[in-house]
Amino acid sequence: MKYKAEWIDGAINTPKGFTAAGVACNIKKNNGLDLALIVSDIPAAACGVFTRNIVKGHSLQRTMSVIESGTARAIVINSGNANACLGQKGLADANEMANMVSENLGFNADEVLTGSTGVIGQPLPMDKIKDGISMAVKALSTHPKSGHDSQLAIMTTDTMTKEFCVNLTFNNNEDNRDASSFCISGMAKGSGMIHPNMATMISVITTDCDISQPLLATALRDITDKTFNRVSVDGDTSVCDMVVMLANGKANNSPIISDESDEYSAFCEVLEELCRKMSKAIAKDGEGASKLIEVNVVNAATKQDAYLILQAIAKSPLVKTAMFGEDANWGRILTAAGYSGANFNPEICNIKIGDLLVCTYGTAVDFDEIRAKEILSENEIIITVDLVDGSFNDTIWTCDFSYDYVRINGSYRS
Amino acid sequence: MKYKAEWIDGAINTPKGFTAAGVACNIKKNNGLDLALIVSDIPAAACGVFTRNIVKGHSLQRTMSVIESGTARAIVINSGNANACLGQKGLADANEMANMVSENLGFNADEVLTGSTGVIGQPLPMDKIKDGISMAVKALSTHPKSGHDSQLAIMTTDTMTKEFCVNLTFNNNEDNRDASSFCISGMAKGSGMIHPNMATMISVITTDCDISQPLLATALRDITDKTFNRVSVDGDTSVCDMVVMLANGKANNSPIISDESDEYSAFCEVLEELCRKMSKAIAKDGEGASKLIEVNVVNAATKQDAYLILQAIAKSPLVKTAMFGEDANWGRILTAAGYSGANFNPEICNIKIGDLLVCTYGTAVDFDEIRAKEILSENEIIITVDLVDGSFNDTIWTCDFSYDYVRINGSYRS
Repeated sequence: MKYKAEWIDGAINTPKGFTAAGVACNIKKNNGLDLALIVSDIPAAACGVFTRNIVKGHSLQRTMSVIESGTARAIVINSGNANACLGQKGLADANEMANMVSENLGFNADEVLTGSTGVIGQPLPMDKIKDGISMAVKALSTHPKSGHDSQLAIMTTDTMTKEFCVNLTFNNNEDNRDASSFCISGMAKGSGMIHPNMATMISVITTDCDISQPLLATALRDITDKTFNRVSVDGDTSVCDMVVMLANGKANNSPIISDESDEYSAFCEVLEELCRKMSKAIAKDGEGASKLIEVNVVNAATKQDAYLILQAIAKSPLVKTAMFGEDANWGRILTAAGYSGANFNPEICNIKIGDLLVCTYGTAVDFDEIRAKEILSENEIIITVDLVDGSFNDTIWTCDFSYDYVRINGSYRS
Repeated sequence: MKYKAEWIDGAINTPKGFTAAGVACNIKKNNGLDLALIVSDIPAAACGVFTRNIVKGHSLQRTMSVIESGTARAIVINSGNANACLGQKGLADANEMANMVSENLGFNADEVLTGSTGVIGQPLPMDKIKDGISMAVKALSTHPKSGHDSQLAIMTTDTMTKEFCVNLTFNNNEDNRDASSFCISGMAKGSGMIHPNMATMISVITTDCDISQPLLATALRDITDKTFNRVSVDGDTSVCDMVVMLANGKANNSPIISDESDEYSAFCEVLEELCRKMSKAIAKDGEGASKLIEVNVVNAATKQDAYLILQAIAKSPLVKTAMFGEDANWGRILTAAGYSGANFNPEICNIKIGDLLVCTYGTAVDFDEIRAKEILSENEIIITVDLVDGSFNDTIWTCDFSYDYVRINGSYRS
């Protein structure tokens, strides 16, 4: 089935039946927006993917639990404080956050998801949260500015927004005015402490698509593995990482209920592209980053070998500082592959930086240093390691490592 | 058996029967010393521990092979060029280096060990190496300055020497003028690309002790695991890492031939202390480091759990930048433990920075921030994570992550 995907300048409340707000309630020290609320008019199919860190934030733990019902109507997220490592008080505060929203909006607290991101180990300032929720409920709107505000309110050290919105129209007939269509919109925060499973990131995705909850959950899980779990900024993962998705069916498309349907395939393709855009935006906005780096491993003997090498290269401070310095130090790339734990033969592999072959049969190529410098001076750099050993390919996105990473993270609590 | 260990201001040629030299032959761009030669007057028992990186430098590969005989008389090491990833030419050049030494000194090339450290993928400048070896052979001496020069000649981004020397005297009787005694001396280079198994490091250890080769090899392997393999600067490991040890027996001590002897225990204790001193010096001299950080995990359920957590904390850029910023951000320490892959219960563990408890039962302690700042402003910081879960303890040494790490590694090849 043909379809048209149109990327538009929307926000998290662009899909039908969603409202959003972002307000400032003084949790952050810089007076920025720090509390986001997103609400569906009607109960929505809900699912999420969560951090694999043993240590889990309380707001996230609560969401993992209540989302098991498969339905939700709202999500409230604060930035500036992670609500993590606080024992019983942390869970009580997360519950209280949800209660405040449900009381204001008149629905069940179990239908409210909660998220928090920021400093670990400091109690949530519940008086400020309470004020913030009151303000947010009043500010809820379908206006794009309210959606953008909710994006701003979940950001911490992020320097750019990460909002993407797409209209998908099934288009068998050009004149078909009643073509089935729906909208998917996503926003994300994430900048440092980023590594697969999961990044220090929170993403909320809304859609007015009518899709069964089990299919929604399967799609989100599979796609997260190929997108959000392929981003690494610094190898650290956090206790608050989650992607949650709400689908309220308000588009009145013909319901997607079979994983063999063309509509489901189209839904997955577009959702994957949406998640990839957010993932690359997170890598590009890596704390202190000046460049987005895409690392490809091709022709690996196994999926695991490809993944181990990608992780090692994307985590290597030596590779990342060389990229910052625009230095074609391919030896560090091969060295990282060598200690990754993957099985491969370094004596047959090739490495390219951009389209420039810098290493072949595991040895130096007398490459054009001026061309290398040109490639490395770009904002986006593609590194390809060809293992010449099989047929598995995989990709990860990361960024360079700069002075600013150190500056940003040397005094995060202060 | 009682013994006395006396730490003295010696060099690699302080043990009897060793000579050394360090010369400049223009491999390094800064005109610094870049070729070291250490020679034993007579064939010595020899052993080594080598990188586990799949990619191995050619000089190192050659040493791994020739050291299997258990005997060697000399080691030649250049800095400024790693002699790695160069195919057949790399191995031929390593052989040629050994030949040049053996021809000059009149013994077998198989008795000459080779090492190289520096940039990967550029051919060794063999004309310069040849000149350097001629100069070094002429400069060989027992004078401490020659020993110190050989230390300087193996350094790359190191900012300080890492030489330690100890006299061990068995001392049953205070007046025993014929007490058996021997000397062990070590030197190391290593600063960046440092992580267990192994660091980007080369260490040479000499001793005039009379000890059987199998015992020497066992001692070195076990002790490396507890010392050099417990250092992490940036999580990267290199292709040229090795620790080699020569024991020539010139001290005429009663030979150490049993692993159950008191002499062997004493030998191991002192060798371990020597290797620990070099390891801590490597961590302290981590590229751009301003602080030595010792991380202890105590009361782990298994050895593996302790090790996984140590590695995660020592590698975490977020922990390391927080230490640089003198910020008691214990949440990052607990978070790193959480994603380490270790099994533990975060809700019962405690974290101390120095002697200050900052986290108990996995939650925040209202600690004295001024005292924390005092502790974190020291040059050496001890972090202790108590898992309250068993009886295994382990330690790793690392350093903070500073602007200078980025500066040093952004343009290493240039």
